[in-house]
Amino acid sequence: MPAPASESAVQPETNPLRCEMPADPCAIVIFGASGDLTKRKLIPALYDLAANACLAPRFAIVGCARTAMSDDEFRRLCADAVRDSPETRTPGEAQWGEFAKNVSYVGGNYDHPEAYKKLAQRLEEMDKKYKLQGNRLFYLATPPGAYANIIEQLGQAGLARPQSDHSWARIIIEKPFGSDRESAAKLNQTVLGVFKEKQVYRIDHYLGKETVQNLLVFRFGNGIFEPLWNRNYVDHVQITAAETLGVEHRAAFYDNTGALRDMIQSHMLQLASLVAMEPPATFDATAVRNEKLKVLQSIPPRSTEQIDREVVRGQYGPGKSEGKEVPGYREEPDVHKNSATETFVAEKLLIDNWRWAGVPFYLRTGKRLPRRVTEIAIQFRRAPHIVFREKNVEPNWLVLNIQPDEGITLSFSAKLPGAEMAIKSVTMDFCYRTAFGPGSPSAYSTLINDCMRGDATLFDRGDNVEAAWALVDPVLDCWINAPAPRFPNYAAGTWGPAESDQLLENDGRHWRNP
Amino acid sequence: MPAPASESAVQPETNPLRCEMPADPCAIVIFGASGDLTKRKLIPALYDLAANACLAPRFAIVGCARTAMSDDEFRRLCADAVRDSPETRTPGEAQWGEFAKNVSYVGGNYDHPEAYKKLAQRLEEMDKKYKLQGNRLFYLATPPGAYANIIEQLGQAGLARPQSDHSWARIIIEKPFGSDRESAAKLNQTVLGVFKEKQVYRIDHYLGKETVQNLLVFRFGNGIFEPLWNRNYVDHVQITAAETLGVEHRAAFYDNTGALRDMIQSHMLQLASLVAMEPPATFDATAVRNEKLKVLQSIPPRSTEQIDREVVRGQYGPGKSEGKEVPGYREEPDVHKNSATETFVAEKLLIDNWRWAGVPFYLRTGKRLPRRVTEIAIQFRRAPHIVFREKNVEPNWLVLNIQPDEGITLSFSAKLPGAEMAIKSVTMDFCYRTAFGPGSPSAYSTLINDCMRGDATLFDRGDNVEAAWALVDPVLDCWINAPAPRFPNYAAGTWGPAESDQLLENDGRHWRNP
Repeated sequence: MPAPASESAVQPETNPLRCEMPADPCAIVIFGASGDLTKRKLIPALYDLAANACLAPRFAIVGCARTAMSDDEFRRLCADAVRDSPETRTPGEAQWGEFAKNVSYVGGNYDHPEAYKKLAQRLEEMDKKYKLQGNRLFYLATPPGAYANIIEQLGQAGLARPQSDHSWARIIIEKPFGSDRESAAKLNQTVLGVFKEKQVYRIDHYLGKETVQNLLVFRFGNGIFEPLWNRNYVDHVQITAAETLGVEHRAAFYDNTGALRDMIQSHMLQLASLVAMEPPATFDATAVRNEKLKVLQSIPPRSTEQIDREVVRGQYGPGKSEGKEVPGYREEPDVHKNSATETFVAEKLLIDNWRWAGVPFYLRTGKRLPRRVTEIAIQFRRAPHIVFREKNVEPNWLVLNIQPDEGITLSFSAKLPGAEMAIKSVTMDFCYRTAFGPGSPSAYSTLINDCMRGDATLFDRGDNVEAAWALVDPVLDCWINAPAPRFPNYAAGTWGPAESDQLLENDGRHWRNP
Repeated sequence: MPAPASESAVQPETNPLRCEMPADPCAIVIFGASGDLTKRKLIPALYDLAANACLAPRFAIVGCARTAMSDDEFRRLCADAVRDSPETRTPGEAQWGEFAKNVSYVGGNYDHPEAYKKLAQRLEEMDKKYKLQGNRLFYLATPPGAYANIIEQLGQAGLARPQSDHSWARIIIEKPFGSDRESAAKLNQTVLGVFKEKQVYRIDHYLGKETVQNLLVFRFGNGIFEPLWNRNYVDHVQITAAETLGVEHRAAFYDNTGALRDMIQSHMLQLASLVAMEPPATFDATAVRNEKLKVLQSIPPRSTEQIDREVVRGQYGPGKSEGKEVPGYREEPDVHKNSATETFVAEKLLIDNWRWAGVPFYLRTGKRLPRRVTEIAIQFRRAPHIVFREKNVEPNWLVLNIQPDEGITLSFSAKLPGAEMAIKSVTMDFCYRTAFGPGSPSAYSTLINDCMRGDATLFDRGDNVEAAWALVDPVLDCWINAPAPRFPNYAAGTWGPAESDQLLENDGRHWRNP
């Protein structure tokens, strides 16, 4: 049940979403309403927002998909979604009823104008019924092939324009945004032919995670980290996004995509930009995204030889994951028997600017690795001179854990208690869960709420997406021209192919294997 | 029981003292053997060293005092001391016997040559019996008035000289070392008339504490703290040594001494030196003590007006300490009814050098404060520009907790989970006990072991002691000339007089009240 707005002020500490005020009243239209993402993430996130008084007391959710479904059937789908969501508290019947009455469904073909006419009618009804002030949020949660069609149809149906001077229309577009620079540019063209850039919210749910947002506060809200945050003190940066899972139910999509597109182009380059960016002039969407773009633009294009040397691809073979025998990637259902798709990428990036020149950023992502973990690890340079007899002093590491346990760890040298001057590396830890309790909002709640409030800071801008593709495209080209000589090249349950370790060893470094 | 030397190598992890090798065989002569310090600290520390194989398997302990006592009586006194020591595990009978057989006692008057003849004989016996190679460690644990006499008598008895080219004679002198610069200089003269400086170990047990030693590792064993450790990034430093106890059984001594002499001249200036010193060229006694001396020499002398403004004295009146009504200082037994002795000092120091110019060091110590705590707290400057809407961002603090819980805490700004960009100060913690278990050696064990191994790094040098007195003397003079107008000026159980808070408020700062 969406609590009345006045209540939200009195319970800020028990409200994990901590909205200062609910968003504007609006209708939320989900395309792909019968799909997996809607069930697993969007409906639970919307319910959470409503339950925490972060939605306006007046809202409407309209599901759209090809499937024929009654309003009640869609409401039942939503109820199941909320019940099955591990992060969401299952509501009582009355509570649920309050929410569900605002939910309805419009079926139809995405490329049929008829469907959009029906949708427009429904939105007008909802607008009147709930006094939504004409505000509309469209969420594209369909397969990416449908995006262009839906966007154009929305335009033609007059739904892309704000309904009045005081109302807004916004669109959230799920990743992947294109499959290379050209297709991304083309999609941008389509989108910007219908919407203005400021209406467009390209989502990367990694950016909704607390630790990622906290990275900005950590860097720019403290006086002591920024002075160290440069080539004088940082030796190198490691960003790891490791999964223990294999390709699972996404094989059909994944086998045409691969780790480079699926993880590096979006999440990993985003994380790298946030670590490396200069302080923005203000904390608004334009300023932050300008600085992120500058980082991507400072990464020089790589020659084929450089790509061969500095980008490692891998594909998992059979092995052992979390104690169980698991098949290799090529043995997974829906995967091509000779698939050349990479399930692992490790690469070295250099950011050629005053702050970072000469400091390598190593990125690594893969499926079927030994642990599920996403982290940004910064290794600082060693102390320039060790006055102690024991010279073997570990360098300092700052590790930002993004998942599964959001937190920050700083390792430093301390004296072992005792008569001898023995030195050991120890850690100081900060754990989000311990400090703030288990109530971190889901990344989707955060981002949908941001969008409803018109804050695009954590969303991707068209030029940023294209800049990220520009870094990935040459690698894709290389790999198409020279298929991997020996796939699979790592066993499930290991930290990727030997070349990944070699990549760092060439520089006298090694991966943290967290 | 002193374990055989070979055993110490196999149990380094369970040996909290972690000596790489036992010290040289030697005789330890304790002057003031029937006194409080011997019972509370020295005997337990020596037993701990022996039990952890940090004494040589061959050693002898000889107690000396005016009291007439048999060897067995002294052994019983030692047994009681070990049993009553909260930090020492009570030994089994056989274990204790092994230790106690090496303990004996020589009674006599400290200014009678006769006593030293008896002592010399005993030492020769022990030397032969235990093959001590002529090594001798004298420990002055008497009231300070007896130091000069004992030192001169040791000289006259030929005990101050090493017995051979391969043996050593060292002397540990308890604090207080003098009661002002003049008396300290005179005592130095006496000591150095008999011993060479390198034989002399002026003890300040604060320097034996793990966190204090760790301060050096923390600063100089890590690459990331030293760059911040200067006027560009540090706003100010607070050093607090707070006791909840009143004057207790030390009134007769304390009423003639006061907090300035008892705490500031020794402990607090030592701590300040360690925080402020430049990296030493090497980690040996000369290099470290040279750097510490430079800090004291960089503190400019203060005018009477400055002292009035920047040094606050206090004396506790009746109040409540840990839930109990307690009397004021002047009502304590053995305290003069109109005593002008200060039980609290707060002062501001400036260190005029390139590193610290303009960064105040605030020192504060007192009895009957609300909590027992010793800590060094460094407040860093605020971030130069806050990009977030929420501008009220706390500065970073680095707190080195020295007692009761040795550890390090770094506070920093983090994002509160939730939709809003709300910022909160949180901490990363490192706790010695959690990291290394409860087995930190006592400060006395550490320092006695250092002395036996000839390492004077953590002891005070004559010139350092005098430099510290030179900073304190003008304050003592001022206070003698102008007795405190309104003593008592703080209630027991509070954080000292209002002037102490005012001292920082004048600079727009305030005390952490930990």
